[in-house]
Amino acid sequence: MTVHKIAVLAGDGIGKEVMPEGIRAVEAAARRFKFGIEWTTFEWPSCEYYLQHGKMMPDDWMAQLQGFDALFFGAVGWPETVPDHVSLWGSLLKFRRQFDQYVNLRPVRLLPGVPCPLANKQPGDIDMVIVRENTEGEYSSVGGRMFEGTEREFVLQEAIFTRTGVDRVLKFAFDLAQKRPKKHLTSATKSNGISISMPYWDERVDAMGLDYPEVRHDKYHIDILTARFVLSPERFDVVVASNLFGDILSDLGPACAGTIGIAPSANLNPERSFPSLFEPVHGSAPDIYGQNIANPIAMIWCGAMMLDFLGYTDAHDAMVAALERCLVDGPRTPDMGGSASTTDVGKAIAALI
Amino acid sequence: MTVHKIAVLAGDGIGKEVMPEGIRAVEAAARRFKFGIEWTTFEWPSCEYYLQHGKMMPDDWMAQLQGFDALFFGAVGWPETVPDHVSLWGSLLKFRRQFDQYVNLRPVRLLPGVPCPLANKQPGDIDMVIVRENTEGEYSSVGGRMFEGTEREFVLQEAIFTRTGVDRVLKFAFDLAQKRPKKHLTSATKSNGISISMPYWDERVDAMGLDYPEVRHDKYHIDILTARFVLSPERFDVVVASNLFGDILSDLGPACAGTIGIAPSANLNPERSFPSLFEPVHGSAPDIYGQNIANPIAMIWCGAMMLDFLGYTDAHDAMVAALERCLVDGPRTPDMGGSASTTDVGKAIAALI
Ligand SMILES: CC(C)[C@H](C(=O)O)[C@@H](O)C(=O)O
Ligand SMILES: CC(C)[C@H](C(=O)O)[C@@H](O)C(=O)O
Repeated sequence: MTVHKIAVLAGDGIGKEVMPEGIRAVEAAARRFKFGIEWTTFEWPSCEYYLQHGKMMPDDWMAQLQGFDALFFGAVGWPETVPDHVSLWGSLLKFRRQFDQYVNLRPVRLLPGVPCPLANKQPGDIDMVIVRENTEGEYSSVGGRMFEGTEREFVLQEAIFTRTGVDRVLKFAFDLAQKRPKKHLTSATKSNGISISMPYWDERVDAMGLDYPEVRHDKYHIDILTARFVLSPERFDVVVASNLFGDILSDLGPACAGTIGIAPSANLNPERSFPSLFEPVHGSAPDIYGQNIANPIAMIWCGAMMLDFLGYTDAHDAMVAALERCLVDGPRTPDMGGSASTTDVGKAIAALI
Repeated sequence: MTVHKIAVLAGDGIGKEVMPEGIRAVEAAARRFKFGIEWTTFEWPSCEYYLQHGKMMPDDWMAQLQGFDALFFGAVGWPETVPDHVSLWGSLLKFRRQFDQYVNLRPVRLLPGVPCPLANKQPGDIDMVIVRENTEGEYSSVGGRMFEGTEREFVLQEAIFTRTGVDRVLKFAFDLAQKRPKKHLTSATKSNGISISMPYWDERVDAMGLDYPEVRHDKYHIDILTARFVLSPERFDVVVASNLFGDILSDLGPACAGTIGIAPSANLNPERSFPSLFEPVHGSAPDIYGQNIANPIAMIWCGAMMLDFLGYTDAHDAMVAALERCLVDGPRTPDMGGSASTTDVGKAIAALI
């Protein structure tokens, strides 16, 4: 029996509450589909660790994590004690960049049983995948402040788009679009206003498009694209976007599908030179932490994506089917209008698997 | 009788179709409230002008426009012949920057008679104003490309936030929030991911907040903020944002209120050292140009904002009341489910004023 080594990084807040349910569900799938998982738990990255050690992770974090088949990640952040840009740049954003997880994949689907904030949409109407560039673009650490503390003070922040960085994520997105029935790729841009980087992005999309004659591709400026997500989400299939635009669209998309609390994401290094990371879109939610009411479905869905990436498509499908069934039949956590606990929902889904 | 000098810059596409209706409505208000308007029409900026002269405007555009009390602007852009970043940076973005129109003001309201894409929202539920920084931030002309045409190619684009630039728009937004019943200001940020410029933005918001003890202010990261616009738009009153985030929110907000085609905007130089500019949020819409079916309501609403800025609050209110009445009673252009022409709607609203 193959045994996969998974690092468990629960992080802060509800990350710690949903993680056991993610593990429970993956365990259930492993039993059913006959493979083994060896879990190794880490207390970092977390804001508690930061308060004790002055950093989010030990210096040798890369060496410690490199050997794992995947990183199962809860959520990091506790703004009351550690500013978000410190906790996130000290953990999640380091993983993405140093493990070269250059694709951030976020499926967005309107599922049965989930109340949709948009009028007149049926399950099936929204079914897209957002492919976000995950290592460069607007999220850069280059820049600084000058004339600090004076009236002349200003701040510069560089956005950086490399040919390598842009082309590889576009290739991933075109490949994905090619495999889906609609074969439709939408690129998010803002080349009418952001006049240096975004025209370059458009140029690379057009160049890559030549290699994919079967994929229909179009582009929308990010402002009108966010409007279109609300007005006609059924129009989208695969959406590829820069780091920032992808970040925005992958919160907005799930919101339109009513599923912000249950949306999963995968930070992939498609070449498998480094471990990939699977994390819910939701954060650490300090406001509801400690009550065992966080919805574990995003974490479980992440587990499904992780197994898919490890080659177990059947296990993925069984897990997604189970969580879909739970969304229809319950039990439900308070965010979905029920009164079940995190554990109740996790156990119910594990039983369905 | 006071006479105001207004420059008419209809631009491209439907800009040319909605402009006459904007003028008609302002004329009606001027007659009723007893002031005069002297209109001066310019054939630039426009893509046609560009094709003839290799630029969007003559070199002395500033001198030609400086003396006007306001600029009444349709829409610019004709991507088939002139790339958007050329036409926009050669016109609208120049006005904003060189006439120092540092506030872009965009009211977002769910109005009776307008079909709302969100489920279970009533007129009145959405009533916010977006205050967008309009001269700096992510829209900069600083940056460039290196190793062009090779595998090592990359592009840099600088975002620039100055203390002067940030503080003045924040002050405008806090002042506005202070005057509104809810006294609530939301700041759009992304300081967890964009780690140099956005923490600075947050810092300035907090500093400015000290001067406005009556205004309750909070901040949301742009990703979750777009989600909140869809899930709970009633929560927002005044929203202040950087150039890019404001651009996104002021398309998304109107989309949530069902009014993307009728949303107005004002590009203000509050000190009145330069003329301010009033333009619909919609663009030149090449796809529907030439059929006289464009909705003129945004242009008319812009006329109302222009008169407000010139000191005629009554005229503003009468114009907005008229367009609201028309939204309920018709006539309606095709985008609102009717079959009336641009001219029909314009005449009806002028008659109501
Ligand atoms: C046309 C474009 C450059 C412009 C902007 O991004 O500012 C437009 O979207 C707007 O909102 O006025
Ligand atoms: C927490 C934050 C830095 C992060 C991001 O912006 O990438 C999050 O919003 C996400 O989408 O994973």
